[in-house]
Amino acid sequence: MRRKQPYTLVAVASFTGLGLLLATPLWAWDGLVEKQTFEMESFTTQGGETIPNVTIGWEAYGELNEARDNAILITHFFSGTSHAAGRYSADGEPTGYWDAIIGPGKPLDTDEYYIISSDTLVNLGANDPNVITTGPASINPDTGEPWGMDFPVVTIRDFVEVQRALLESQGIESLHAVMGASMGALQAIEWASAYPERVERLIPVIGGGVADPWLLATLSAWAAPIRLDAHWNEGDYYDGEPPTEGLKEALKLVTLNANHWQWANEAFNRDWADDARDPAQDINARYAIEQTLDDIAGARAKLSDANHLLYLVRANQTFMAGHGDSLEAGLAAIEAPTLMLYSENDLVFAPEGVRRTAELIESDGTEVTLETLEGNRGHLDGVVSIEQASDTLREFLQ
Amino acid sequence: MRRKQPYTLVAVASFTGLGLLLATPLWAWDGLVEKQTFEMESFTTQGGETIPNVTIGWEAYGELNEARDNAILITHFFSGTSHAAGRYSADGEPTGYWDAIIGPGKPLDTDEYYIISSDTLVNLGANDPNVITTGPASINPDTGEPWGMDFPVVTIRDFVEVQRALLESQGIESLHAVMGASMGALQAIEWASAYPERVERLIPVIGGGVADPWLLATLSAWAAPIRLDAHWNEGDYYDGEPPTEGLKEALKLVTLNANHWQWANEAFNRDWADDARDPAQDINARYAIEQTLDDIAGARAKLSDANHLLYLVRANQTFMAGHGDSLEAGLAAIEAPTLMLYSENDLVFAPEGVRRTAELIESDGTEVTLETLEGNRGHLDGVVSIEQASDTLREFLQ
Repeated sequence: MRRKQPYTLVAVASFTGLGLLLATPLWAWDGLVEKQTFEMESFTTQGGETIPNVTIGWEAYGELNEARDNAILITHFFSGTSHAAGRYSADGEPTGYWDAIIGPGKPLDTDEYYIISSDTLVNLGANDPNVITTGPASINPDTGEPWGMDFPVVTIRDFVEVQRALLESQGIESLHAVMGASMGALQAIEWASAYPERVERLIPVIGGGVADPWLLATLSAWAAPIRLDAHWNEGDYYDGEPPTEGLKEALKLVTLNANHWQWANEAFNRDWADDARDPAQDINARYAIEQTLDDIAGARAKLSDANHLLYLVRANQTFMAGHGDSLEAGLAAIEAPTLMLYSENDLVFAPEGVRRTAELIESDGTEVTLETLEGNRGHLDGVVSIEQASDTLREFLQ
Repeated sequence: MRRKQPYTLVAVASFTGLGLLLATPLWAWDGLVEKQTFEMESFTTQGGETIPNVTIGWEAYGELNEARDNAILITHFFSGTSHAAGRYSADGEPTGYWDAIIGPGKPLDTDEYYIISSDTLVNLGANDPNVITTGPASINPDTGEPWGMDFPVVTIRDFVEVQRALLESQGIESLHAVMGASMGALQAIEWASAYPERVERLIPVIGGGVADPWLLATLSAWAAPIRLDAHWNEGDYYDGEPPTEGLKEALKLVTLNANHWQWANEAFNRDWADDARDPAQDINARYAIEQTLDDIAGARAKLSDANHLLYLVRANQTFMAGHGDSLEAGLAAIEAPTLMLYSENDLVFAPEGVRRTAELIESDGTEVTLETLEGNRGHLDGVVSIEQASDTLREFLQ
């Protein structure tokens, strides 16, 4: 299933070239993160469509060694970005989603490893100044207009292929490890399945080897509010008002599904959103939890693009390790020792599917460690509660 | 908190009057069900709003005894109706949702009990010929137009008060038992809390004593697609095209949330909806599970009203036994021996909340039996897998 990718590599850094990166300590990770840009003149998807001018952002923490064999690739989740760790300004706080485990002396030790992460194609945060991506909101050079729904369907494997080009542009042929949460787990699994000779260790977090029917339906529910919003206009909204309300509702579902009732019932109560408006008296009044979820979604929607969400939904839906042929063969192809971290309360990736994935990877003798994450967040414990796996991660990476 | 209800009772049966019902065996349950109508000239809600001409439908199975003390009230779930059991025509199949436990010789034995169920106010199936209800889709006699969003907010307690009027119109002052699933459990709990002297046995199924924050948010998500649909038009759509697409999406979420990943992954696969349209090639193509959920929702939407769904959401959100004062007091007020049936895989009513409800009812010595329902449907096991509780139910009712 591994097709040759006819892409052309053009390494473009937003601040400096690759040579400088390797020659000087300027880029050694010191807690400051610079978003970089990687461009490809052309990228052909697994589906056979060619996308010109593919541009994605990336970040790295730590230093690539001379042998270029100390790289750990972090692949991001559905609503995530390449910002896995660190601060963007000297006086800012670290804002990476996995700061708890990435840094000097931490399990993903930046004194030892070169940790790199890139924004996926069709990244949700198309309007986030810290995200660089190519997708429906990008200009199609052939028309001079945004692609909209004419953008080709892209898959998890396409995300992997862009990452492979990025890594090759830095002379990285082999990964010390690939690790990702949720959609990031799918990319990590695809990496290890498609390129077993390039992946030394695999760490899928809160994700499994296939989008099961439950996930297909859940993702479908996330897409629905966008298509319902009249402003969506079949994806053609870049000249006018975008489908912000639909996007907000989609993001609220993402937040709700990625959490668990334990969290909702511990973090919230039955307070009204407005003390003066009793929901039992006013059909348009609301509860505080509704308002809070709305506010979170509203802030997120400003940085996001609705069509990108639809394409991310599809990328996740199409996922099956082994690329559509056989899940068993796709997972058996993995040779890397594997550490799977998951939550028994995951409402997105059914724990049953995670355990089955572990069995199938293990079926031909590949070593698999399966460990649960505790917490009250369900799926999201893979992101916000990762620190508890520190010792396991440290040991596994050695 | 029990206010006097200034309603007037007008007993109207669609086929015969109350006298005939009690005087002849014509109405003894013989497997044929006739939908009846109950009217109130006026009903004042707990919120203090008066609704003229309240009309609801009801059904009964079995015969009311002379002492009028063999009645079991069945209270229905969110998308349910009064049709708990039986067939509407001699050559038809039984289509009640609890046919498995209601009938001659069954745990809710129609040879022994008079089993009665009524459509709630704001019943979802406003366009279902077998549903009779009063809600936003009803004509407001003061304006001659449908109420729309001017309909008063109604609560679970209001549902109970209408049922109380219905029962009193038949001379029933005391219930052998009240039993309901999900939203029906809330009504049953409210009955036993508000009228401990009238309820001899309480059977809440897949429901607890309060709408917890998780449920508030889940219900909010169900309402959202309707408000997003431009045809909703702030609830004013009775002259034009209704918000069918929004209603469909709402109903899809209800179906998905009321089930469990075990069901989705056992009942479905990764088949495409259309063999000729590969979702990996066509962003508008879909998977079979999406199409099936869509078809189910589409059929249901035809019988349903979008504003009614919004009012049902609110009725459930406002629910707390004890009517807003104290959950502890509300549940301690229950005197009836209680049988609670629930699923540990319930994604709507958190099992933790069900167990907490049992503890609070039990706190002053009331006898509570807590039993789990097994199955792969999660919340819905309370409806579709109820038969496994047959022995428990039979014993509890004696």
